[in-house]
Amino acid sequence: MIGPVRPSTGALSPLGVDQARLTGGFWAERQERNGTATIPHAHEWIERTGWLDNFRLAAAGELAPHRRRGREFSDSEIYKLAEAMAWEIGRGGDAPLDDLSMVVAAAQEPGGYLNTMFGRPGQRPRYSDLVWGHELYCYGHLIQAGVARLRTGFEDALTATAIRAADHVCAEFGAAGRQFLCGHPEIEMALVELYRATGTTRYLDQARLFIDRRGQATLPDIELGRAYFQDDIPIRERAAFAGHAVRALYLACGAVDLAVETGDDKLLAAVVRQWERTVAARTYLTGGMGSRHEGEAFGDDFELPTDRAYVETCAGVASVMLSWRLLLATGEPRFADLAERTLYNVVAASTSLDGRAFFYTNTLHQRVAGTPMDPSKPWPRASSSERAPWRDVSCCPTNVARMLASLGGYVATADSDGVQVHQYASAKVRAGETGLSIETGYPWRGDVTVRVTATSDRPWRLSLRVPGWAGEATLVTPQGTERVRSGYAGATRTWRIGDQVRLELPVGPRWTAPDQRIDAVRDCVAVERGPLVYCAESVDQDPAVPLDAVAADRSAPVVERPLPALGPDAVALDVPAAQLAVSANGWPYGSPGGSEPEASTLTLVPYHLWANRGPATMRVWLPQSRG
Amino acid sequence: MIGPVRPSTGALSPLGVDQARLTGGFWAERQERNGTATIPHAHEWIERTGWLDNFRLAAAGELAPHRRRGREFSDSEIYKLAEAMAWEIGRGGDAPLDDLSMVVAAAQEPGGYLNTMFGRPGQRPRYSDLVWGHELYCYGHLIQAGVARLRTGFEDALTATAIRAADHVCAEFGAAGRQFLCGHPEIEMALVELYRATGTTRYLDQARLFIDRRGQATLPDIELGRAYFQDDIPIRERAAFAGHAVRALYLACGAVDLAVETGDDKLLAAVVRQWERTVAARTYLTGGMGSRHEGEAFGDDFELPTDRAYVETCAGVASVMLSWRLLLATGEPRFADLAERTLYNVVAASTSLDGRAFFYTNTLHQRVAGTPMDPSKPWPRASSSERAPWRDVSCCPTNVARMLASLGGYVATADSDGVQVHQYASAKVRAGETGLSIETGYPWRGDVTVRVTATSDRPWRLSLRVPGWAGEATLVTPQGTERVRSGYAGATRTWRIGDQVRLELPVGPRWTAPDQRIDAVRDCVAVERGPLVYCAESVDQDPAVPLDAVAADRSAPVVERPLPALGPDAVALDVPAAQLAVSANGWPYGSPGGSEPEASTLTLVPYHLWANRGPATMRVWLPQSRG
Repeated sequence: MIGPVRPSTGALSPLGVDQARLTGGFWAERQERNGTATIPHAHEWIERTGWLDNFRLAAAGELAPHRRRGREFSDSEIYKLAEAMAWEIGRGGDAPLDDLSMVVAAAQEPGGYLNTMFGRPGQRPRYSDLVWGHELYCYGHLIQAGVARLRTGFEDALTATAIRAADHVCAEFGAAGRQFLCGHPEIEMALVELYRATGTTRYLDQARLFIDRRGQATLPDIELGRAYFQDDIPIRERAAFAGHAVRALYLACGAVDLAVETGDDKLLAAVVRQWERTVAARTYLTGGMGSRHEGEAFGDDFELPTDRAYVETCAGVASVMLSWRLLLATGEPRFADLAERTLYNVVAASTSLDGRAFFYTNTLHQRVAGTPMDPSKPWPRASSSERAPWRDVSCCPTNVARMLASLGGYVATADSDGVQVHQYASAKVRAGETGLSIETGYPWRGDVTVRVTATSDRPWRLSLRVPGWAGEATLVTPQGTERVRSGYAGATRTWRIGDQVRLELPVGPRWTAPDQRIDAVRDCVAVERGPLVYCAESVDQDPAVPLDAVAADRSAPVVERPLPALGPDAVALDVPAAQLAVSANGWPYGSPGGSEPEASTLTLVPYHLWANRGPATMRVWLPQSRG
Repeated sequence: MIGPVRPSTGALSPLGVDQARLTGGFWAERQERNGTATIPHAHEWIERTGWLDNFRLAAAGELAPHRRRGREFSDSEIYKLAEAMAWEIGRGGDAPLDDLSMVVAAAQEPGGYLNTMFGRPGQRPRYSDLVWGHELYCYGHLIQAGVARLRTGFEDALTATAIRAADHVCAEFGAAGRQFLCGHPEIEMALVELYRATGTTRYLDQARLFIDRRGQATLPDIELGRAYFQDDIPIRERAAFAGHAVRALYLACGAVDLAVETGDDKLLAAVVRQWERTVAARTYLTGGMGSRHEGEAFGDDFELPTDRAYVETCAGVASVMLSWRLLLATGEPRFADLAERTLYNVVAASTSLDGRAFFYTNTLHQRVAGTPMDPSKPWPRASSSERAPWRDVSCCPTNVARMLASLGGYVATADSDGVQVHQYASAKVRAGETGLSIETGYPWRGDVTVRVTATSDRPWRLSLRVPGWAGEATLVTPQGTERVRSGYAGATRTWRIGDQVRLELPVGPRWTAPDQRIDAVRDCVAVERGPLVYCAESVDQDPAVPLDAVAADRSAPVVERPLPALGPDAVALDVPAAQLAVSANGWPYGSPGGSEPEASTLTLVPYHLWANRGPATMRVWLPQSRG
């Protein structure tokens, strides 16, 4: 078995989901809940909404337009759920994937075409609306599901359906075919991955065609501009990610996959450069990407509003997928750093503690508490003040599900020198002759103990990532104790079974200030603790202390305390604060002047845990008091 | 002749456009340019785009769907242009309105129906898409054009067409008719105004039906929610304006008109309360309204982003219309204050110095200079970094045109005690037996001289508004010199021809700070001068001083100097500033710490004049330096 991405070359080699198993703690609990709650929940909803019935009706020749349910991309939800199930089975869990695969396979038409929205009597013709129809996007997700199945050791109806669809796409959109592209990138990385899984080079060639075609103004100039679907500038020439965030990040994933497989270092360098600029100027403290509700899009540099942060969950998933690809290609720890930040503060934040409700957008400032969410009804909007059970556009739950089910694959890698641990979770890792057992209380505690459970008799290097947020840490190896700095630290030796390495990370709370160019959080501070971003949620505060005019005093100590309501290990923080006086004269602009702050205390909770205790207001960034 | 709004009761009575004539200075120049440049420019574009041809084709029975041009609301542009021409003629200008009116009239169908988008073979049936079809919205603008024509002394094809359309609406949507409403409010105020102009009560009754129907969840729950078209909550029960800003403000205008005509004090009080909350928490320093690009909408309280300020020009026009109605109803100066602020900093800002290019949105912070606008092509998007000659959605130019052409009507009012001057412009005013000649260099200079040119021999009161921004001013009357405070100041006496009153307003520059709850401008200051908001535009700065990390020192003096490039009287301001050091480590969040600012100077120009000198970046709010 192998993991979610499998480049044929690169600095690091990924491990399969059976080679890195989460055994306990933060992510194992979430992975377990994903298997027992989220995946069945999503399955139930694709039945309830009729999105899966679309396939049954199509197979029976009864899919009249008025009987079809869901938006033009609803097929993809079935495919992403199938991918999640494939990984879940691959990691040793259970899921009714065979039934789902048979329903999907039965709807495929001779020649490989498969989409429930187009091509039947009364429906629009195939490929008549590539701009918005999402046909190639849906294939992309089908192919990724098929690849997940192949990589976890199966050849079945799903893999056959995916391969037939890919062959159909190559025939239809190849060099001699339709010179067009999909309004939503996604198929590019799917085709490269299918090439990796099967060795069939036409999939790689087709991915290259799609990536080279984009940026040539093939798609129409819509109100949002061609930047919306990255058709304004070729990806090789961009300065930063722009336009619809999920589209931009999926495209970048495909470009990295293509670059790695074809040795196109210039293309890889272009994506790295865009990633750098985007991380430096277009990324939230949480790792979230997407500043604009309008167009679900990246903004300009330093346009990072908190209350209208879009930060789509799917963009978080896509960013982790991209960071992982760049980490494998380069071996540079900054990519693992961003993946960690995004996993803890976007991906983990998107799902409720019970695994059955989801944020689509992940704001950094909730001004209005809103009303309680009805867990029995789909929510019609992308934004919500509480997580919703399902949505009319419900791309996020299945996207998170496929990532969590395959998360073991993101923990560690191997190269010719040894093994690298990138993300900390209690886990069992096997890479060739090497076996590791990892025990950690991360992210709540900073201790990580790695024990060698199998080894060759040749020397190899064990590398542990010291996250960028840590600055430095203490590493205890059989050779001694040392202070190590952010990046990869470790030891090279002839290991023996039972050898241990212990990393001690400084997870205590710390104040964080923004670059002065980020206008939205000028003169504010945030509190982080280890990889976790914290926030003030109204349910924890004195009701007399509303969050809209509160300030924090960062010169005073932060006090940690348990937060049992949100988990046995969860840690809350109390910070000294002040309530600011505000004017009430009816016009909110006047002559400059101070007002006397009134002392109080703010309780902060991990951002990913907010909105699990009823409607609330919330803010990550706190104005600085100037006591 | 009478002016743009004519309540049958209220604190103050408006004057006609022939009773208050602008004679020189800031607004007279703009009114003149409106007549000679903007109105012909808009006329040319409605021909070029084929929007007027839609009417010709309809009249000829040749309007097949594939021949129709423009969006579903393009008819309304012809009507707003007709209204602008009617006021232009009313004030003594010239415009080819008769031709336009004949084209419109010829397209009206038996029974009064008139819309080029619906009802013909191949088109959708009449009233089959009231949510988005804008049929009633278009009637609203047709009726307003007819009312303008009636009020300026004409009965012609346009007035007859408008009345037939209104009668048709009453028959079709009356108490026994379709129990529905338009997705875009507008017709409500038009119907009340037509009732005022004609005395026909069924128009008033129909307006009441539309206003009472709204807020009952008749329209669908779209992605943006029913708040988008104010159908979520009855207007009597709202707390603040919400949803699509132009829709909300047009509806509020209609509600005030209805309340005034029916003596419904509760409805009037409800709108005043919503205005208060909106002005206190949802309004920009410029007077602009609409915080969100998504849905062109109001945001939550204190959600006032600068870089993504939407501030649609039409919302500015609508806000002035509403303030004017509330001023007439109550006589309270705060409504004239907001109208002034919005006229100078939104309405005036929307149009280029040559009168032939327009902002649709009026941002307070332009981060990217953009590329030069092509004056020969319509711009496909609402936002732009330079003003555009026309747009696919081109509601703003004609809206500004109708307001500027009728602007004389907003200068002064009368009541049983005398005459009130609300907006300062060189003008000749006639109210009954009273005549005034006003001379002023406002807004560049603070002197206003009012000379009595006609009077009865009974005592009456001359009232002059001291703007809220002034705090206090000096008033010189024949009775002496006094310090007067914001509000209305003046003198009651038996005036003689030649008597003069002189108001001296302190228009010098002043620093302004925001309420601390407005997160987007925390720790920032702005500079205002008289009624004008100022901004820093990149074209005036040292190229080594980019605007994205600049800070202003408000403890130092502001220096005034002439700005001949933007007008003979225009004043620029130099303020001491500092360039802030910024991090360059690739991640824009880190441990708090200061950086040494580098001293420089910033030149500020009036906000309404920015973007007249090529692509530029710009910001209104300046971070405070903490030297």
